[in-house]
Amino acid sequence: MKDKERPLILITNDDGIKAGGLVALVEVAKKIGDVVVVVPNESYSAMSHAITVKHPLYVKEIKHKKGVALYKVNGTPVDCIKLAINKLLDKAPDIVVSGVNHGSNSSVSIHYSGTMGAAREGAINGIPSVGFSLLSHSYDADFSHTKPFIKKILKHVLANGLPEGTYLNVNVPNIRKLKGVKVCRQARGKWVEELIEREDPRKRKYYWLTGYFKNFEPEAVDTDEYALENGFVSVVPCTIDTTDYKHYDNLKNIQGELQV
Amino acid sequence: MKDKERPLILITNDDGIKAGGLVALVEVAKKIGDVVVVVPNESYSAMSHAITVKHPLYVKEIKHKKGVALYKVNGTPVDCIKLAINKLLDKAPDIVVSGVNHGSNSSVSIHYSGTMGAAREGAINGIPSVGFSLLSHSYDADFSHTKPFIKKILKHVLANGLPEGTYLNVNVPNIRKLKGVKVCRQARGKWVEELIEREDPRKRKYYWLTGYFKNFEPEAVDTDEYALENGFVSVVPCTIDTTDYKHYDNLKNIQGELQV
Repeated sequence: MKDKERPLILITNDDGIKAGGLVALVEVAKKIGDVVVVVPNESYSAMSHAITVKHPLYVKEIKHKKGVALYKVNGTPVDCIKLAINKLLDKAPDIVVSGVNHGSNSSVSIHYSGTMGAAREGAINGIPSVGFSLLSHSYDADFSHTKPFIKKILKHVLANGLPEGTYLNVNVPNIRKLKGVKVCRQARGKWVEELIEREDPRKRKYYWLTGYFKNFEPEAVDTDEYALENGFVSVVPCTIDTTDYKHYDNLKNIQGELQV
Repeated sequence: MKDKERPLILITNDDGIKAGGLVALVEVAKKIGDVVVVVPNESYSAMSHAITVKHPLYVKEIKHKKGVALYKVNGTPVDCIKLAINKLLDKAPDIVVSGVNHGSNSSVSIHYSGTMGAAREGAINGIPSVGFSLLSHSYDADFSHTKPFIKKILKHVLANGLPEGTYLNVNVPNIRKLKGVKVCRQARGKWVEELIEREDPRKRKYYWLTGYFKNFEPEAVDTDEYALENGFVSVVPCTIDTTDYKHYDNLKNIQGELQV
C-alpha cells in the first residue's frame, strides 16, 4: 500500500446485508479506507469454506458511491471473496475483513464458520485477512464496544501485514468492559450434539442439529476460550496449512509400513 | 477395539450414494469390519465443513443387513457424521472413512472439500479418520487400483490409531502403476479463478466458478502435489488445530501494540 493512498478494504459476512455486525464493521472500516462490501444475499451461517458449484452466481450492485460500494451475491461468503477479487475489484484489496459475526467462532467453531471461511479464502489468495465475531447470537446485539478493537486490529494489520497463509480469528466477549486483547491458541474442544428429534405431520422423524460447546482444557490459560471467559478479546493467528507437523516425522518414519 | 471383535467402520462421501468411489470404499471396508454408510442424498461437492442449520434433517434407512447398513440424509457430509455418531450408531465407530472422492483434494483443495470436512469432523470427535480421493472427476472412473492402498491404510490406522486431532488426507493418482505411498506436507498453492461470464434470457449477467490449480512450489519434493505428479499416493497428516504456531510467538510479542 502506497503512503497517503487510502487502503482498499474488502468486507464480507455470513449473516446477511442488514446484520448489525456488518454495519458496525463498515462504520469502522470506512474511516480507515475505501470499502467494498460483497455479501451473501441471505444468511449463510455454518457454511464453512463451501463454494457454489451447482448453480451460477448473480451479483447485484446495491450502492456505489465514493468510499463505499455494496454488492449482494446469491452465494457463500467464500464465493463473495472469489467474485470480488477476480471480477468486481480493479485491484487486489489491501485487507479482507469478515464479520462481525453474530456468535462465537472460537476453538473448533472456526471449522463450521462461513465468516472464517471468507477470511481463510483471503489468506489463500495472499491477502492479509481477519475474521471478527461477537459472543452473542442476538440479531439486535450491540456491537459498539467491538469498534475500538476492530479499528486497532485493522490498522495494525494494514501497517504490518501478516505472514503468507496466516489469517486472524478475533472473538469479542459480549460484555461492555473488556480487559484487553490476548494473542491465543485455538482451544481443544468440540460441540457436544443434542439432536432434537421431532415428528412431522406425515409421522416421519426429523432432527435439528443443536448442542453445546465443551472445552477439553478449561485449565489452560493460553487458549481463546480462556481469554474470552476472562473478559479479553481473543486473537488466534491461524494458518491455511493443515499439515500436522507435530506428527509428520512420526508418520514419515513408518512410511515403509504403508507400502502395498 | 477388542481383539477378535470386528471393527466398526463409519463411511460417508460427498458424491452421492451411487458414486463409484463409495462402492469401491465399501467393498474394501466390509472385508475388514462392520460397515455403516451414512451419506448425503445428493452430491454435496465443495460443501467443506458446512452443517445444516436452516432445515431439519431426515434420515432414510436404505439397507440394513449384518455387516453393512446404509442410510441417506438430506444434509452435508459433516451432518452425516454428526447424525451417525450421535443418533444412528450404538457405539462410537473405530474409524471414520470418507470418499473415495471423485477428484483431487490435495493442497488447499482440502478446505473446499466435503469429503475432507467429514474426515475432519471424525477427528474433532476423537475418532481416527481418513479421507480418500482419486485424481479423476469422471463419474465412471475406475477405482480398482485404489483398493489395495485403501486396505493397507485402513488396517494401519485401525491397528495403530492416530494422535488426537489428527486425520489423514489421502490422494491417489489416476494411473494404474502406482509407485508407492509418500507421507507429505500440504503444498502451497491456490485455485486461480476463471469466472465464466454469461447472460441469461433476461439479459442478466451470471458467473460460474471455475479455474485451475497453481502449485506455488513445484520444485519442492516433500509436498502432496509432488508425490501425486510423480506417481505416488500422497498421505498428509492433518490437524484440526488451525493455530499458526510458526507465527504465534511473533504475534504474542507484539500483543502490547494491539491494546486499545
